[in-house]
Amino acid sequence: MRTDELGDAPSVVLIGAGNVASVLGAAFRAADVPVLAVYSATAERARLLAGSLACSCFWGDDFPSVAADIYLVSVSDRVCESVCAMLAGRGMVVAHTSGSVPLPSFSESESGVFYPLQTFTSGREVSLKEVPFFLESSSERALGVLRSLALRISSHVYDLDSARRSWLHLLGVLSSNFVNHLLALSEEICKSRGLEFPHLESLVRETVDKAFSLGPIAAQTGPAVRGDMVTLRRHEGMLAESLPHLLPLYTTISQSIIGRHGARENDG
Amino acid sequence: MRTDELGDAPSVVLIGAGNVASVLGAAFRAADVPVLAVYSATAERARLLAGSLACSCFWGDDFPSVAADIYLVSVSDRVCESVCAMLAGRGMVVAHTSGSVPLPSFSESESGVFYPLQTFTSGREVSLKEVPFFLESSSERALGVLRSLALRISSHVYDLDSARRSWLHLLGVLSSNFVNHLLALSEEICKSRGLEFPHLESLVRETVDKAFSLGPIAAQTGPAVRGDMVTLRRHEGMLAESLPHLLPLYTTISQSIIGRHGARENDG
Repeated sequence: MRTDELGDAPSVVLIGAGNVASVLGAAFRAADVPVLAVYSATAERARLLAGSLACSCFWGDDFPSVAADIYLVSVSDRVCESVCAMLAGRGMVVAHTSGSVPLPSFSESESGVFYPLQTFTSGREVSLKEVPFFLESSSERALGVLRSLALRISSHVYDLDSARRSWLHLLGVLSSNFVNHLLALSEEICKSRGLEFPHLESLVRETVDKAFSLGPIAAQTGPAVRGDMVTLRRHEGMLAESLPHLLPLYTTISQSIIGRHGARENDG
Repeated sequence: MRTDELGDAPSVVLIGAGNVASVLGAAFRAADVPVLAVYSATAERARLLAGSLACSCFWGDDFPSVAADIYLVSVSDRVCESVCAMLAGRGMVVAHTSGSVPLPSFSESESGVFYPLQTFTSGREVSLKEVPFFLESSSERALGVLRSLALRISSHVYDLDSARRSWLHLLGVLSSNFVNHLLALSEEICKSRGLEFPHLESLVRETVDKAFSLGPIAAQTGPAVRGDMVTLRRHEGMLAESLPHLLPLYTTISQSIIGRHGARENDG
């Protein structure tokens, strides 16, 4: 759907001023979505984000009462439900951006979920065009408003219920947080052995390219999938001697590969 | 260094006709490096690769005795040393492409290592231009010949001793084989929960981009680095109920993240 076929852009109030709210706010602004106000628990964060979006700001006990189509709640999971409940009853759609918090249910307002599957780090610009957004609402009207908002900033917008969204959130941990941690451990090993972490970049990029073109089962290479126990034992010996805290992780993942594939003959 | 400054291309005989030999052979051919012959244990593989490189082929007990600058050995680690030893004494540089086999030492010939840090899968074309090659030889002359060969197909050529190369090989397991396995498990979860594996692609690519631009320590997000035990326990509960074989891996990697970072406050 082209943006000019979407009708008037829904107006938004951002509740929260962390990484997710900052990235969404910048994307809304670039897509001519009116961001009317920003709220944060702390004045400093609220002012900073509101400043970059040229809108009014609220903080502390002073919740905004600005009329907008959507109040979009990007706060920590711990307080997400209570913040959503507090905003109900003002006639706006109250939607949160969390992967793991269920669809809020309250009788006073339409509620929704507006979940971008991406990793956000403060100060880093991300294009959202290729980021998938997963939407949920018990109201068809609210779902339409959320969809109209999402389609202005992303080409990949889907409906998804809370149960499957919580699995998607777990998948984000596996495929992003855990992948990044393997790279962090790799960097640690590089430093301790006088090797250069950037030398791994081409390998890691090809690994990802291959997994998403051939599929990761066909793409698996390495000693574990070959059943090459000599190499596995040598690696375990190297880690046991020099970096023993990495041994449980090496062994657990190798065992998981062997369990998934059995031993396969392969020279990759 | 420009290719036309490298002088005459060294000529090569490929020993082995698996994934590594096939990719190197194609790259040599594209770079006008003469590949004079291919040897494989099995006739079928030898014929296939020799056919695509338009060179002579040898198999079984019939080892080539073609005069060439380099005999390049890409066979399984298990037989690599014995194959190298068998080829010594013919006046050529005998070099292997393995990450984990030490530099061969024999008095009859110059020996070397020519190790590309990449994951190779049969039938998949890979550009080697960005792939780092790690070279080793006890002979300065042989090292020069190997460097001249490597620079024709890659822009990233380094000297590295066997001890550090074996760490690089272990790093390849962590940052490629293990990363791919996390993606394989993610695909498995997607299938079992009615989710689409390709929806993870944008997230995984941003994860890699971020790790190599910010550094993976600064880039770490997720429940473990936040010390969000509620989410960790919920994920463990979901896995215990539906996919219990994934639980040890989830717990081990989460613990490793907590151990690496301590608990950090973060809303990423």
